[in-house]
Amino acid sequence: MSEIHGLAVHAAGAHLLPYKYDAGELQANEVEIKISHCGVCHSDIHLIDNDWGFSKYPFIPGHEIVGTVVAVGSGVVDRKTGDRVGVGWQADSCGVCEWCRQGDEHLCAKSQPTCVGRNGGYADRVRVNSRFAIPVPAVLESENVAPLLCAGITVYSPLRNHGVRPSSRVGVIGIGGLGHLGLQFAKAFGAEVTAFSTSKDKEAEARSLGAHHFLNTQDTGALKKVAGSFDFLLSTVSADQDWQGYVNALRPKGMLCVVGVPPSPIQIQAFSLLGAQRSISGSPTGSPRDLHEMLDVAARHGVKAITERFAMSKANDAVAKVKKNQVRYRAVLAN
Amino acid sequence: MSEIHGLAVHAAGAHLLPYKYDAGELQANEVEIKISHCGVCHSDIHLIDNDWGFSKYPFIPGHEIVGTVVAVGSGVVDRKTGDRVGVGWQADSCGVCEWCRQGDEHLCAKSQPTCVGRNGGYADRVRVNSRFAIPVPAVLESENVAPLLCAGITVYSPLRNHGVRPSSRVGVIGIGGLGHLGLQFAKAFGAEVTAFSTSKDKEAEARSLGAHHFLNTQDTGALKKVAGSFDFLLSTVSADQDWQGYVNALRPKGMLCVVGVPPSPIQIQAFSLLGAQRSISGSPTGSPRDLHEMLDVAARHGVKAITERFAMSKANDAVAKVKKNQVRYRAVLAN
Repeated sequence: MSEIHGLAVHAAGAHLLPYKYDAGELQANEVEIKISHCGVCHSDIHLIDNDWGFSKYPFIPGHEIVGTVVAVGSGVVDRKTGDRVGVGWQADSCGVCEWCRQGDEHLCAKSQPTCVGRNGGYADRVRVNSRFAIPVPAVLESENVAPLLCAGITVYSPLRNHGVRPSSRVGVIGIGGLGHLGLQFAKAFGAEVTAFSTSKDKEAEARSLGAHHFLNTQDTGALKKVAGSFDFLLSTVSADQDWQGYVNALRPKGMLCVVGVPPSPIQIQAFSLLGAQRSISGSPTGSPRDLHEMLDVAARHGVKAITERFAMSKANDAVAKVKKNQVRYRAVLAN
Repeated sequence: MSEIHGLAVHAAGAHLLPYKYDAGELQANEVEIKISHCGVCHSDIHLIDNDWGFSKYPFIPGHEIVGTVVAVGSGVVDRKTGDRVGVGWQADSCGVCEWCRQGDEHLCAKSQPTCVGRNGGYADRVRVNSRFAIPVPAVLESENVAPLLCAGITVYSPLRNHGVRPSSRVGVIGIGGLGHLGLQFAKAFGAEVTAFSTSKDKEAEARSLGAHHFLNTQDTGALKKVAGSFDFLLSTVSADQDWQGYVNALRPKGMLCVVGVPPSPIQIQAFSLLGAQRSISGSPTGSPRDLHEMLDVAARHGVKAITERFAMSKANDAVAKVKKNQVRYRAVLAN
């Protein structure tokens, strides 16, 4: 049982190749999961290509995992064999620091990402600390859940933690893998939702996902027309934007939260923050607490990722299509 | 009683000259205040010089006012003749919008600043909506209270509203008119306080005002040494800074709040906000609720502005000295 089979990258930008590793003895706090699905996230591509400079080869990518617990360590009390669980960006944390103590394990300085310095989910099995294997509500389909574990929590957590509520006016900037989930979750919070996109042809779908309004950011002056309108703007895009325009689009006490990483620094006039008490924040994925809650919300509100399925053996095709931004909206590998 | 005597500016950058105006009939919601003291704030200088482009001449500057109520309008129920009160940046608001309803009158779109489009506190008397005339606790000296009404609330409100508490590690950037009050209030919140200054010779005073640590920002690498250290950084400076260095100095969930206005845009790498869930915010003066609370806190904790007193008739000397940044730390005019 200790030999795990997957698809690994052996050098920056290389194709995925069959690979096996010995997972050793199951640790007391670990569960072993038989993987049914794994999403292909843009972060996987960055790791494959060593865009962040810390990839170590060979490694198996994949951190949007759904599967079934097939073994539990001697100390595990919160999961049992047969449980369907999801695993996201994080596989472990120190468990004892102030952030872990307060349920913010994703901020732990010793956080262990699922596929950085470990092997991830493009595989038949994976092992993680049981705390990071989140039970999946029965009504949710595994294929549609997989992308929630990273893309979903990335948009859910900031909406939750910055107090979006039914009176809020929320804008989701960029309607792609993250944004199409952002619209659904913002709607679940009861907010008035605006989709910001450069693609006019996404309007109908954006509305069907929960947007009450659609703003084509290619339209000259479009941002100026909504000055002072939003309580919360969530930017999911990884391209440079008219950040000042977005800050100006905030109401008093409004917040612009970035979850996508643009190449250039964000530039903002201090005065535009001061007068109306606005702020700019960033948010990483999210804590196990938020993952539990998000899956419950997804089950209750029918939030699901729109997916394109690939057989695990076709992972290279999936990666290539994700690289070209041709997937609407998330690629998922299925065993 | 309706003729008010003061000192007005008649053109951008001009000297203050004796001036009188007819205040007309006292409105139902107004109080008339006999002014004993008025602080000289940098914002007065900006208005005198028309730096913000909306000054209308002639006008009487002054928005850090302390005095005694000498008349109350027919509808006033919260103040009475003889009350010692303070008035800050704001003299009135619409009273009915969502921000006024929730006690955030400073965010009201129809907020009326005390000396913009009205005549302020370099005068013998002034009239404001009674809601903006805040009772001054008996133990406080009027001369030391005057600067609290603008400089004080500007640093108090962000500490209050962003949840600074005894476990917080707070940095105050810039030890001047605002910063020397920021240190005192941060100490009142029970926080561990660090003073950031370019002037090594301010260390002893900064420590006497509440700083546990002093960081000379001229020291090479000083900011790098405190990376990941602070929950809350309050920037009171109006010069460009190493903003990225300050963001990097924040702990997870930490916030950089700017209350001074630097000339250039603030530039920040999005990644430095994302991973550790950091944020950047701005804050204007503060609400009447916060003003009430701040004066109570000042009374309880002995917070006071360090002042240099000028006779009202020497207002031009005070303005000149403030312009040269030679006042330690706030100039106050006394009638």
